[in-house]
Amino acid sequence: MAEKKKVGILGASGYTGAELVRLLLRHPKIELTLLTADRRAGQAMGDVFPQFAPYSLPRLTAIDRIDWPQQQLDLIFCALPHGTTQTVIKDVLSKIPDVKIVDLSADFRLQSPEAYAKWYGHAHLALELQSEAVYGLVEVYRREIRKARLVANPGCYTSCALLPLIPLLKAKAIEADEIVVDAKSGMTGAGRSAKEEMLFSEVSEGFHAYGVGQHRHMSELDQEFSKAAGKEVIASFTPHLVPMNRGILSTIYVRGRRGKTAEDLHAALAQQYEKEPFVYVLPFGKTPQTRHVRGSNMTFIGVAADRQPGRAIIVSTLDNLTKGASGQAVQNMNLMLGFAETLAIDLPAMFP
Amino acid sequence: MAEKKKVGILGASGYTGAELVRLLLRHPKIELTLLTADRRAGQAMGDVFPQFAPYSLPRLTAIDRIDWPQQQLDLIFCALPHGTTQTVIKDVLSKIPDVKIVDLSADFRLQSPEAYAKWYGHAHLALELQSEAVYGLVEVYRREIRKARLVANPGCYTSCALLPLIPLLKAKAIEADEIVVDAKSGMTGAGRSAKEEMLFSEVSEGFHAYGVGQHRHMSELDQEFSKAAGKEVIASFTPHLVPMNRGILSTIYVRGRRGKTAEDLHAALAQQYEKEPFVYVLPFGKTPQTRHVRGSNMTFIGVAADRQPGRAIIVSTLDNLTKGASGQAVQNMNLMLGFAETLAIDLPAMFP
Amino acid sequence: MAEKKKVGILGASGYTGAELVRLLLRHPKIELTLLTADRRAGQAMGDVFPQFAPYSLPRLTAIDRIDWPQQQLDLIFCALPHGTTQTVIKDVLSKIPDVKIVDLSADFRLQSPEAYAKWYGHAHLALELQSEAVYGLVEVYRREIRKARLVANPGCYTSCALLPLIPLLKAKAIEADEIVVDAKSGMTGAGRSAKEEMLFSEVSEGFHAYGVGQHRHMSELDQEFSKAAGKEVIASFTPHLVPMNRGILSTIYVRGRRGKTAEDLHAALAQQYEKEPFVYVLPFGKTPQTRHVRGSNMTFIGVAADRQPGRAIIVSTLDNLTKGASGQAVQNMNLMLGFAETLAIDLPAMFP
Amino acid sequence: MAEKKKVGILGASGYTGAELVRLLLRHPKIELTLLTADRRAGQAMGDVFPQFAPYSLPRLTAIDRIDWPQQQLDLIFCALPHGTTQTVIKDVLSKIPDVKIVDLSADFRLQSPEAYAKWYGHAHLALELQSEAVYGLVEVYRREIRKARLVANPGCYTSCALLPLIPLLKAKAIEADEIVVDAKSGMTGAGRSAKEEMLFSEVSEGFHAYGVGQHRHMSELDQEFSKAAGKEVIASFTPHLVPMNRGILSTIYVRGRRGKTAEDLHAALAQQYEKEPFVYVLPFGKTPQTRHVRGSNMTFIGVAADRQPGRAIIVSTLDNLTKGASGQAVQNMNLMLGFAETLAIDLPAMFP
Repeated sequence: MAEKKKVGILGASGYTGAELVRLLLRHPKIELTLLTADRRAGQAMGDVFPQFAPYSLPRLTAIDRIDWPQQQLDLIFCALPHGTTQTVIKDVLSKIPDVKIVDLSADFRLQSPEAYAKWYGHAHLALELQSEAVYGLVEVYRREIRKARLVANPGCYTSCALLPLIPLLKAKAIEADEIVVDAKSGMTGAGRSAKEEMLFSEVSEGFHAYGVGQHRHMSELDQEFSKAAGKEVIASFTPHLVPMNRGILSTIYVRGRRGKTAEDLHAALAQQYEKEPFVYVLPFGKTPQTRHVRGSNMTFIGVAADRQPGRAIIVSTLDNLTKGASGQAVQNMNLMLGFAETLAIDLPAMFP
Repeated sequence: MAEKKKVGILGASGYTGAELVRLLLRHPKIELTLLTADRRAGQAMGDVFPQFAPYSLPRLTAIDRIDWPQQQLDLIFCALPHGTTQTVIKDVLSKIPDVKIVDLSADFRLQSPEAYAKWYGHAHLALELQSEAVYGLVEVYRREIRKARLVANPGCYTSCALLPLIPLLKAKAIEADEIVVDAKSGMTGAGRSAKEEMLFSEVSEGFHAYGVGQHRHMSELDQEFSKAAGKEVIASFTPHLVPMNRGILSTIYVRGRRGKTAEDLHAALAQQYEKEPFVYVLPFGKTPQTRHVRGSNMTFIGVAADRQPGRAIIVSTLDNLTKGASGQAVQNMNLMLGFAETLAIDLPAMFP
Repeated sequence: MAEKKKVGILGASGYTGAELVRLLLRHPKIELTLLTADRRAGQAMGDVFPQFAPYSLPRLTAIDRIDWPQQQLDLIFCALPHGTTQTVIKDVLSKIPDVKIVDLSADFRLQSPEAYAKWYGHAHLALELQSEAVYGLVEVYRREIRKARLVANPGCYTSCALLPLIPLLKAKAIEADEIVVDAKSGMTGAGRSAKEEMLFSEVSEGFHAYGVGQHRHMSELDQEFSKAAGKEVIASFTPHLVPMNRGILSTIYVRGRRGKTAEDLHAALAQQYEKEPFVYVLPFGKTPQTRHVRGSNMTFIGVAADRQPGRAIIVSTLDNLTKGASGQAVQNMNLMLGFAETLAIDLPAMFP
Repeated sequence: MAEKKKVGILGASGYTGAELVRLLLRHPKIELTLLTADRRAGQAMGDVFPQFAPYSLPRLTAIDRIDWPQQQLDLIFCALPHGTTQTVIKDVLSKIPDVKIVDLSADFRLQSPEAYAKWYGHAHLALELQSEAVYGLVEVYRREIRKARLVANPGCYTSCALLPLIPLLKAKAIEADEIVVDAKSGMTGAGRSAKEEMLFSEVSEGFHAYGVGQHRHMSELDQEFSKAAGKEVIASFTPHLVPMNRGILSTIYVRGRRGKTAEDLHAALAQQYEKEPFVYVLPFGKTPQTRHVRGSNMTFIGVAADRQPGRAIIVSTLDNLTKGASGQAVQNMNLMLGFAETLAIDLPAMFP
């Protein structure tokens, strides 16, 4: 048997880090040889996530203690906060330029320096890397990802809206300037930092919208929608928080172009995704539930006719930690390291 | 002190029945003298809802056992299932024509016999009463309700969308044919009947849309939107289920007419509801949460600018069992019996 | 009408503060004239708890900005953290010695300076007040509370175990050295501070014990159990966290003394609490649910026979924010100010 | 590669059926060739559990339509309701006596015909099979299971209490007549049948005990505790329902015998389970959480000292659908078919 590839996770103490470990522990062709978490450095992974206590895993290290060349890493998952990520990755690649990186932050998702500066309020600190990075939505950029050194893993809200809409925009099957994306997310999408508004008692037994009108996720939507449509697209987008852990569901209101009906849109998506292992289009008129993709790398998409003639309602769902983050990241890794694309992420969803 | 009015509840073993009892137990001017529940007849209310075991309440009776004149009821709340309601009310009013009725079912909400037949698949069985019934949304029909014998309490989804949109449609401030209402409801909205899809393990930790494209609630929306706009209005409407007990939140996408901005829409709503005891308009740009109206009779409305010029996002929330059903019903009763409108329903929300 | 009494809340931005405001807004004989919250000073109560935005309430103040005599307060609720409370109350009483205080912290619950020092690791800083304070469990100390200046409102876990067990210990009906109290609490019992272990995603969809073997609540149990039994009692006690907002339920395993059966224990409790407005003993063999006391000031107690001869299982439940904290505090206030004991806290539970 | 074994599931439309499919879809040495569900016969598994829609699985069949010999099954999982199971299995084994069966119902768990008749109210209908059946708790009966034709998979509550207590009872390390097991379960333990008391709105945001004093699970506890202790053992046992989907946690109060301390009990368990793949004993004083075993086949056990000298508190947790049902069943299958014991059930827990 060939030697296993060495893989590290920067920022292993957050939820996407834990999800990476859950998936990678069962990957037959890689071994986890490095886990970092600055504030928890020195601790065992089982101290931070007790579910891993029975497993043999490297101790958590601080990033600035790492001798990069000595690690002999083949690939790094970077699950660090936005902002610091770009300096860390720049530094790592200066020391070990041959390593491959899948970045789960937002730092390398925007390809235009201007767009980045506008949405994040400062110039990007690693401009050459920004232009090198490939947007890691496998179903759209599979070919580029295979050859990439640095892949920017897409945002969870974004993936959930892009997968149903990109094929329709490319085919000019829907009006690009009448898209409404009403998105709902479970709480793990907000991460593991201790904030009052994320306490159980603030979140359970309730529902609310946030960032109404302006939200950074929109910049990613704009970029990919516009690229697909071949012209500038600005969609209405509202994120909401659901009192559940995992799952994103987007209800998307569109109008068909040139007489395209809801059935036509459904047929186009069904054909587009027929052979994709991680996208499933439900029969026409049926719509999906978050719970049926929980813990899996699947995206479920449903299309129904609106009662307003010419309009359709598309419902799309994925697990924000899996296909929306870490599962997508492993899918990217599999391509980048030449493995079968579905390796270790072919788990059925866990319902109930 | 004047004698208390005698009040009955038909269908007291469901959630809206329990909510009526919760509110009415503290009403200083009425006494509950009749509670019915056919399948639980003979039981104490505390057997069906243990929270009421410490209170003195009439035992549950079967409807067909009641000697109506002898009951000397002043007002009846009817919380029976759709369909049977119309024959029951017809029968009751034939025996005690002077009683006042607040009906919580959908049976008398549609005013057009044709619309009723279309959405419910059969002719209405009490056509004269259908034309007599007043639509019980107090903020819109207060004057008519004061004089009404039969009030059709509005649906929960409907109320949540009507309160923000009726004033805007009346003022012709928004485009009537571009309205998208994305609505999310807690589980009590689905009632207390034992169905697999309502089990805890089917519902918790997940989120989904249902009735996409076609849903009976739309008929009520159509009627009231069209009346307000003075022309036929057909909105896009999608209901969803949230893993929580109480609360409805609607995210509403609209386009201003004749240069009206989101700020203009906000100002119009703020002015409209300034003196209403049960509608609160948040400062511009802020949006409400279901938990902050839980158990209260309040509707909270927020308005924010969409980033697409000319468009606004309105978020409206109420407790589906209170302002969306039983609280609204008590508000109607207060008007019909000449009491202060806020009596017994001026409870602050319970959060957390 | 007599003038309303002036009441203040120190620490109004926490959950017990919000619960006090919810209850007191409807109290006909008091007005809230002072609300403090150091970190939120200057904000409106509606900024901190949006459900109160529609109400007229004083702005939040910092404690050290208050001119105490000028406030002319009749009673103060103190909902500050343990530890700082004793110095604040000492200071307040030095300036306005006639004010009455209901303290919701643990600072004045232990009556022995030694016990306090042992469990809290330092000498009490207001020893005279410690000896003056009355333990505010109304059903046990009603007479003392009426005359008290300073009342120490009991802990939520403690109240839930004391109400069923004190009468049995006083009557020597159970073995005092074989008591096991297995207690489960909703998350609001842990307060509103932002800690990782209290995040929604850490708490939902799971269950766990904490503080196993040693927990400060035990000191209160020891004190009151021992006082009732007339000898030292040390019970086994384990607290757990339930993914819900409100409610404590204790499952209590006891052995009858001198042939007392489970039925005997039930009869004793039923008789003891027959006339108490806030304690309800279920029929023998039935056990209560937290949801049926939610938002109310009730304690529900059930007694069933264990299958082991001579042993009984007692299940007791209350809402930790109401009877377990703020409702109990208002009950104390009502006695201290000479009002009817049930004023403003006679709300039925809110279920569902 | 050797041919895959053919495996069937009787009763695939319930939660344990879905959990078997989730686990077995990834088992490299078996193929699912038969799925039954009488009321859903003719439907696809993806109609009953949409998460399986993307997978290729046999359609659901009615049991009485099956030509057993033609199926050539190597092993059957029986996930049918208690009662009917015994006649179905008797019939199946009369037609294909060489098939191996793992039964997930309670029908073959009790080994004494008298105990069965007492707890279930009627004589067992397949007495020879009852005496043949092996109790399928692998960590205790591994050797017998390898050779068994019919294995009775243990109950979820039972497994959670047996794993920590059997070694201690065998070693006579604890008093056998002072055991209190306070058990809490997620809602999937109650199955998928539509009952009012299992509706989301009846269960969420609350907590309660049920079956207090008498519960059929006790018969299994009695049998295995007594066998381990070598004398009759009757423990106090109270089950509770937690508003979560998966997980059982038992808080167990014991007294050490002959001077055994909590540390001694911990050491005994740690040693006992050192090499077991599916039991993990936490460091002394730490206690586990249900969420850290969710979806995995692990049992986590913690031991802490009670403050009462000589007493200890043991906390044990497992996922009721995995180690408490279907994961344990696959573990049994792996042994019965000669596979590696951990095959397909070595998934790490899914948290959050």
